[in-house]
Amino acid sequence: MANSKYEYVKKFEADDKLPPYNWIVVRIDGCHFHRFTADQEFEKPNDQNALDLMNSCAVSMMDQFPDIVFAYGVSDEYSFILKETTQFYQRRSSKILSLFVSYFSALYIFKWKDFFPHKALELPPFFDGRVVCYPKLRIVRDYLTWRQVDCHINNQYNTCFWMLVKSGKSVKEAQELLKGTQTKDKNELLFQQFGINYAKLPAIFRKGSCVYKDKVEETVKLDDTGNPIKRVRMKVTVGHFDIIGPKFWNEHPNILEEES
Amino acid sequence: MANSKYEYVKKFEADDKLPPYNWIVVRIDGCHFHRFTADQEFEKPNDQNALDLMNSCAVSMMDQFPDIVFAYGVSDEYSFILKETTQFYQRRSSKILSLFVSYFSALYIFKWKDFFPHKALELPPFFDGRVVCYPKLRIVRDYLTWRQVDCHINNQYNTCFWMLVKSGKSVKEAQELLKGTQTKDKNELLFQQFGINYAKLPAIFRKGSCVYKDKVEETVKLDDTGNPIKRVRMKVTVGHFDIIGPKFWNEHPNILEEES
Amino acid sequence: MANSKYEYVKKFEADDKLPPYNWIVVRIDGCHFHRFTADQEFEKPNDQNALDLMNSCAVSMMDQFPDIVFAYGVSDEYSFILKETTQFYQRRSSKILSLFVSYFSALYIFKWKDFFPHKALELPPFFDGRVVCYPKLRIVRDYLTWRQVDCHINNQYNTCFWMLVKSGKSVKEAQELLKGTQTKDKNELLFQQFGINYAKLPAIFRKGSCVYKDKVEETVKLDDTGNPIKRVRMKVTVGHFDIIGPKFWNEHPNILEEES
Amino acid sequence: MANSKYEYVKKFEADDKLPPYNWIVVRIDGCHFHRFTADQEFEKPNDQNALDLMNSCAVSMMDQFPDIVFAYGVSDEYSFILKETTQFYQRRSSKILSLFVSYFSALYIFKWKDFFPHKALELPPFFDGRVVCYPKLRIVRDYLTWRQVDCHINNQYNTCFWMLVKSGKSVKEAQELLKGTQTKDKNELLFQQFGINYAKLPAIFRKGSCVYKDKVEETVKLDDTGNPIKRVRMKVTVGHFDIIGPKFWNEHPNILEEES
Repeated sequence: MANSKYEYVKKFEADDKLPPYNWIVVRIDGCHFHRFTADQEFEKPNDQNALDLMNSCAVSMMDQFPDIVFAYGVSDEYSFILKETTQFYQRRSSKILSLFVSYFSALYIFKWKDFFPHKALELPPFFDGRVVCYPKLRIVRDYLTWRQVDCHINNQYNTCFWMLVKSGKSVKEAQELLKGTQTKDKNELLFQQFGINYAKLPAIFRKGSCVYKDKVEETVKLDDTGNPIKRVRMKVTVGHFDIIGPKFWNEHPNILEEES
Repeated sequence: MANSKYEYVKKFEADDKLPPYNWIVVRIDGCHFHRFTADQEFEKPNDQNALDLMNSCAVSMMDQFPDIVFAYGVSDEYSFILKETTQFYQRRSSKILSLFVSYFSALYIFKWKDFFPHKALELPPFFDGRVVCYPKLRIVRDYLTWRQVDCHINNQYNTCFWMLVKSGKSVKEAQELLKGTQTKDKNELLFQQFGINYAKLPAIFRKGSCVYKDKVEETVKLDDTGNPIKRVRMKVTVGHFDIIGPKFWNEHPNILEEES
Repeated sequence: MANSKYEYVKKFEADDKLPPYNWIVVRIDGCHFHRFTADQEFEKPNDQNALDLMNSCAVSMMDQFPDIVFAYGVSDEYSFILKETTQFYQRRSSKILSLFVSYFSALYIFKWKDFFPHKALELPPFFDGRVVCYPKLRIVRDYLTWRQVDCHINNQYNTCFWMLVKSGKSVKEAQELLKGTQTKDKNELLFQQFGINYAKLPAIFRKGSCVYKDKVEETVKLDDTGNPIKRVRMKVTVGHFDIIGPKFWNEHPNILEEES
Repeated sequence: MANSKYEYVKKFEADDKLPPYNWIVVRIDGCHFHRFTADQEFEKPNDQNALDLMNSCAVSMMDQFPDIVFAYGVSDEYSFILKETTQFYQRRSSKILSLFVSYFSALYIFKWKDFFPHKALELPPFFDGRVVCYPKLRIVRDYLTWRQVDCHINNQYNTCFWMLVKSGKSVKEAQELLKGTQTKDKNELLFQQFGINYAKLPAIFRKGSCVYKDKVEETVKLDDTGNPIKRVRMKVTVGHFDIIGPKFWNEHPNILEEES
């Protein structure tokens, strides 16, 4: 009994290969996480365990999919950058998108108990995702800047908002107080009313998280005279840097290398 | 600090709306499940618990995404059919694909312990997915036939293969014995050597699983005289039917209704 | 000297095959024809020679590209319908679009002198085009209805407008007078002021032009007794019918046949 | 009589905007020109008038569509390059493709009599076209190199082939003689048998044609003392240069400028 008669239905699958020599960015975003974080009683404005869980998933993503050269995460979203010349699944958009969002979702639930040992998952959280092509490196850098600026704006607002709410204001009062305020005003408010120096808050909250491969020196074993024998290898690393200015990129020139 | 300067990077997101008045099929497929099922020691050729888990995920999918009108599953794959006129996320392909594959993956791990209470998940399984548009109902029917014929072909082969292997043949010997055999030969082999009537094997193995909404009559409460007060409601139902012939579809004319 | 080193640039050409089992409509539209028709002093509201030229081009299109099953033209636009199952250039959108719009443009200029023997072409007119897929026959019918309703609305308005202008009104006065009028009002105006019965105007103006293949009986030669030997062949034919109602389609059931 | 009920058919038109910050190349190619050039008895291997006609069309294209920054033509094909940041018709692929191929075809027939005053056009020639996006300038340069290398390979072959045929060889003999020959062999053949120094043949045959905007100094009028008053303006210019090496591009740095 051959199946060939019906195989014509495969012809309806569109060719969705992404254009060559474009950087590929996959952004994953929590779906209905406003409600999910309320149900699971996340710390506000930032839940360190939840961010650590997101970062742990991102590290596993880079181990599983070596074509990812950089990842940037903030709140319940993560962006993964694939190198310009990647041939991962022949650059098929649906394959890349579905594998990334599926594996990330799977990891999130699989690792949950490691980060929330005393808080069972009530409902399975899930994510949406999208794939975007960027034709030049400088636009990928602008993309990352866009996300980190967003991280800053949101975090500063949320920090103020939750301090006000925790100090007794209603949600509406807090929103009213913050309406139209600038960066400087918010820093002032935090310092004057709550003695908080925004710049001293943990970098993971203010800057988000960068995941990348870095050289690390490891002691393999000791030689006969007891001196350590070392080797350098690439290890997936998490840091919380400014990725808007050139400093980080100058120090890590190999991460986003343009083909010449 | 406005973010508008960098928002131009959003313009690189392609419009991926699926064409109107096409049926949408999302097929999800286990990734590296050959290895996963070996690691987790699934029963061969079919693991009833694993199939029940898949079906339970599909039922939850239909509860979560009401635009799914029918789902068909076999082995580690599931196809979800959205009605022709669905406006779910404005028919955006990436949204639909990522949400479906993410939620299915999340459910699979979340529900794992209910179906395998004594077998911990060692690594997080994940899925890939694709979205296909079909312009006519008769082609959707051909799509489903294609999948059910495939189910039959694979299941019959696997049933023979694993019976031979369990009876002492090597993998290679089993493959050699089955090379070039027809449906009739395989049925003969199963009956002669192992006393198995293939047609009597559980329908879930031979036919796969259909998930759809069906009318069910429920007793709401009893009235004053002790007679049941009933109501009819739509309930997501799992069955194992032939969906190649017209019988099932004639009995359930509302599932795949064509717009007129 | 091999060229293979640079052939990688061909990989940037996207696969633009149109989805199978969809009707393909190519619509061609005059570009800047408002100015072109003024420069070339076309009769207003309708120039019979110009419409005959458009129709002659459409007939040649159907001779050149036999996969066109029907064409509908009005004013400076023409729609060409390819059958659902056409494999013309493997359904590649750019090939179909570019060949159609190029050949139509070429024909228009090539045939110009046959329809305007005393009026030289001052500048080369040209056209834009688009390709649209329709998944069902009934939507193709709605597409054609859309175009013929548009023909009616525009022609009725233009007939009134130009009668008013020719009778001495300014452009602005004519526009003011017609603002907000309904079909009935416009028919009344034509009849009362100009003695024109709109329904009696030439069908080509009111209904546009249909181009299709029809059976025609031809005398091949006379037999020995002087009686004509006839044969039936398909010939590209132009007519001006109502294509909104079922009559024309019932009389020509083979033109838009749905695959079963 | 409103048309809104049927306007839903417009929703089937796909969004075909080309991705931002990509160079756009439109290549137009003669359709069935093998036969057309035979019917019209073009000179072989190159017809100067036919090439001049192609170039004249390309010049008119650049006047009509100022977003074209460079065009390269060889034989019956022409490539038009639009700047990276063009917003011409919102970068809609079908609009750009159809307008370009239509206007080029229209020009070709409209201008025909200027270049072939004694040879009437027997059938209307036409072209196909395609649109390709290139994400970086260096790949656009590779594209142009690909076309110019192709020009060289074809022209050298054709020059040999037609000299052999004109000298009495059959088509088959000429093909046999040229099979497997290298550049050097072909130059040798031309020189030894026909006294032709390939490098001295007209550059338009060997290099194709470049069309671009260049600064030209013009005398506007004479001043009171009889001295010329000059001004510099950009004028569309045709040349036959090597565009593989850096010389031409270094001398014309503004033609293909990359956005920074």
